[in-house]
Amino acid sequence: MSNITAAIEYAQEHKEDSLEHLISLLRIPSVSTLPEHDDDMEKAAQWIAEKLNDFGFEDVDILPTARHPVVYGTWLKAGPDAPTILVYSHYDVQPVDPIDEWSSDPFEPTIRDDSLFARGASDMKAQIVAHLIAMEAMFHTVDLPVNIKYMVEGEEEIGSPSLEAFLRENGQLFTCDYCLNLDAGILAPDLPSLTYALRGLGYFEIQLQGPGSDLHSGTFGGVVDNPANVMCDLIAGMKDKHGKVTLPGFYDSVRPLDDKERDALAKLPQPDSWWKEQTGAKVLNGEEGYTNIERATARPTLDVNGIYSGFIGEGSKTVLPARAMAKISMRLVPDQSPVDVRRSLETYLDENTPSTVTWELDEHSSCFPGMIDLESEAVQAAASALEDVWGKPPIYKREGGSVPVVGLIKDLLNVDSLLLGFGLPDDNLHAPNEKMHLPNFYRGIETYIRFMDKVAR
Amino acid sequence: MSNITAAIEYAQEHKEDSLEHLISLLRIPSVSTLPEHDDDMEKAAQWIAEKLNDFGFEDVDILPTARHPVVYGTWLKAGPDAPTILVYSHYDVQPVDPIDEWSSDPFEPTIRDDSLFARGASDMKAQIVAHLIAMEAMFHTVDLPVNIKYMVEGEEEIGSPSLEAFLRENGQLFTCDYCLNLDAGILAPDLPSLTYALRGLGYFEIQLQGPGSDLHSGTFGGVVDNPANVMCDLIAGMKDKHGKVTLPGFYDSVRPLDDKERDALAKLPQPDSWWKEQTGAKVLNGEEGYTNIERATARPTLDVNGIYSGFIGEGSKTVLPARAMAKISMRLVPDQSPVDVRRSLETYLDENTPSTVTWELDEHSSCFPGMIDLESEAVQAAASALEDVWGKPPIYKREGGSVPVVGLIKDLLNVDSLLLGFGLPDDNLHAPNEKMHLPNFYRGIETYIRFMDKVAR
Repeated sequence: MSNITAAIEYAQEHKEDSLEHLISLLRIPSVSTLPEHDDDMEKAAQWIAEKLNDFGFEDVDILPTARHPVVYGTWLKAGPDAPTILVYSHYDVQPVDPIDEWSSDPFEPTIRDDSLFARGASDMKAQIVAHLIAMEAMFHTVDLPVNIKYMVEGEEEIGSPSLEAFLRENGQLFTCDYCLNLDAGILAPDLPSLTYALRGLGYFEIQLQGPGSDLHSGTFGGVVDNPANVMCDLIAGMKDKHGKVTLPGFYDSVRPLDDKERDALAKLPQPDSWWKEQTGAKVLNGEEGYTNIERATARPTLDVNGIYSGFIGEGSKTVLPARAMAKISMRLVPDQSPVDVRRSLETYLDENTPSTVTWELDEHSSCFPGMIDLESEAVQAAASALEDVWGKPPIYKREGGSVPVVGLIKDLLNVDSLLLGFGLPDDNLHAPNEKMHLPNFYRGIETYIRFMDKVAR
Repeated sequence: MSNITAAIEYAQEHKEDSLEHLISLLRIPSVSTLPEHDDDMEKAAQWIAEKLNDFGFEDVDILPTARHPVVYGTWLKAGPDAPTILVYSHYDVQPVDPIDEWSSDPFEPTIRDDSLFARGASDMKAQIVAHLIAMEAMFHTVDLPVNIKYMVEGEEEIGSPSLEAFLRENGQLFTCDYCLNLDAGILAPDLPSLTYALRGLGYFEIQLQGPGSDLHSGTFGGVVDNPANVMCDLIAGMKDKHGKVTLPGFYDSVRPLDDKERDALAKLPQPDSWWKEQTGAKVLNGEEGYTNIERATARPTLDVNGIYSGFIGEGSKTVLPARAMAKISMRLVPDQSPVDVRRSLETYLDENTPSTVTWELDEHSSCFPGMIDLESEAVQAAASALEDVWGKPPIYKREGGSVPVVGLIKDLLNVDSLLLGFGLPDDNLHAPNEKMHLPNFYRGIETYIRFMDKVAR
């Protein structure tokens, strides 16, 4: 029996412990955006630090940032000649609203069929626990051939606002050869995949102010512009009927898709029926001239994430609101930048907002888009590990979402990130009834073990 | 000293009591639209019933309706040959949000300068108390020349949904010669006025459903229509750049303004600066081809009263929402009807909603527009009373708001309504920091005394 087989067997024998650990972490409602969960954020960080200590890591610490702390730990016994992998993950989760639409308590993990339902199950506590268990299994059975450093942040779901300053201050702790980013998924339970490109993000809040205060819509309706109507006019004007974003210069730096990549993307197993099933949309729609996989991963978008004005309680209130608010985000592709699209949006608002209202713009989060090298040693080891576990080579894919830390780590630590995780597209990320497919969780443990075994050879 | 002078002196001697009564009624948070205030609605009804009893009314009762009760009372001692006036008012008030913008507790009445600040001060508890005090003063001093019936409802601010069924059931209690509706105002402290036309209302809620549930805007942004963006498109399309409503057939039954009326409206003392001051808007805007007074009182409008979709808390959530909601109301003028504009809106939604979302429409309240006869006996008596108190004849004006009960009373009791009240345009009706100008409150008491004295002569 080879050493690596022993590690895999150890993990299989401890399957129940693995699930218990995952459930225990999911019970902590670590919602980073809501100040009332600050204590829970502390608890989640402590939970991870405790496991790192229990499993054999050294230098374990909870390092403060401007807001939520980073959990740190190392295992450096492979020696100075072995590669060092920085393992990145995040212990924070999205808010749970609309809470009414959850079939079970989001923080009381519940198994139905093959899945574990809880906020953060797929994004991304299952990956955290799977990798910890892989480490534990290897520590008990083999001489791990690589050095490991852990960085578990608590602000990914709010755009990692403290991470840049934290890495500028503490970069020396995280020197490494690769970053293994666990915040990822595969296309389907039987379709292993690796992500080579990510979209970026510009997330903005527009505030419009019209009259001095809320007015009676009977007494004053007709003589003043209603900022809620104006907001609708402005948002409606941000896209044309072909699904193109109309903000000035928005597409100027978009890297065109070449035929080779379009052909490869066309081979991905995602027909219209797949997108309909995943979204529950009866009819799909998007930018003219592109396929759905291109629209979702390789083309930029503009979406309203939230809009509010006036009276939204039950019943009626005949108010002409003084203000309107909209949260609007754009997914960006290489070589767009959040700085450029902010300028586009500001120019648009300058040129199109009527003189009857004033506008203000806030930026809530931003992220550069990114693409990684398919020929790197880390990608090849991951592909091989996936093939060992799934019995077939992985699909290489672009991701529609954004992982701000990937750009930041390249910039400040000068290493590339490999994204390797086991969520599924229908896991209801950021939505009610988030779940983790449990067979993927267990295969993920084995994949992480095999990856770490291969990457140093 | 004539009898009527004695009544006026009696009221003047009891000024402090009047204010105390008003403050006591304003302390009851009788918000009709919010179920958590149902007990307060009961309390407000009981408060009024108690005063009717104390002041000498008979048959005082709190009559149940499907939701909030109607307070009833009579004084019929003028005899069967004297005219009978039905006095209409409402004890319910608007919600207080946004509560942060109130300078003092909305239900702890506070005097600043000449005004009393509280929710419901102007709309319309000051008028209720002023008329009760006028009645008390007359009962103590004169032989009242008219019979009086009181109807104080609790659902005006939610569109009087129970009143039609209530009047169909109890109409015989309210037989009368005129209705005196106290829910009204004048143009400025030194400008007495009488209202001869009211706008109607159609208040609708549109719900759009797109994908099956909230989606991650990174994973799925680009392939599905976002119902919040679609809602903005739909609302933006409801008006053109000339401020005209584009719903099919919307203007078909609008009665054109003739030159005589336009000339009269043009003489009202409301220049642009007045509208800017009242609204706090730096720049006015409305339907092309009409003046501000025409836009606010004699032309129909369409306004967003509330809009909501997605995440509206602090910070960011990268959600592509499954649903969007908008509350949209139209102010109507003769001879539009709420039924017709509902059909217009439905046709528009049918024709313009993309197949990617489904829509539903609810009607929250509706009201026919109305115009009353300037030559009626009640209007002449009111004009004379106003001239006695203010020293100048009143201005005749149209009102931009809606008073559903006026149409209902004409329909079911077959009498016209005279609107006589003493609120001011800058009283912040339906908005934070609602107030009542106290000198108007006291003049209002005298006007009601003089009106009741004149109307039977």
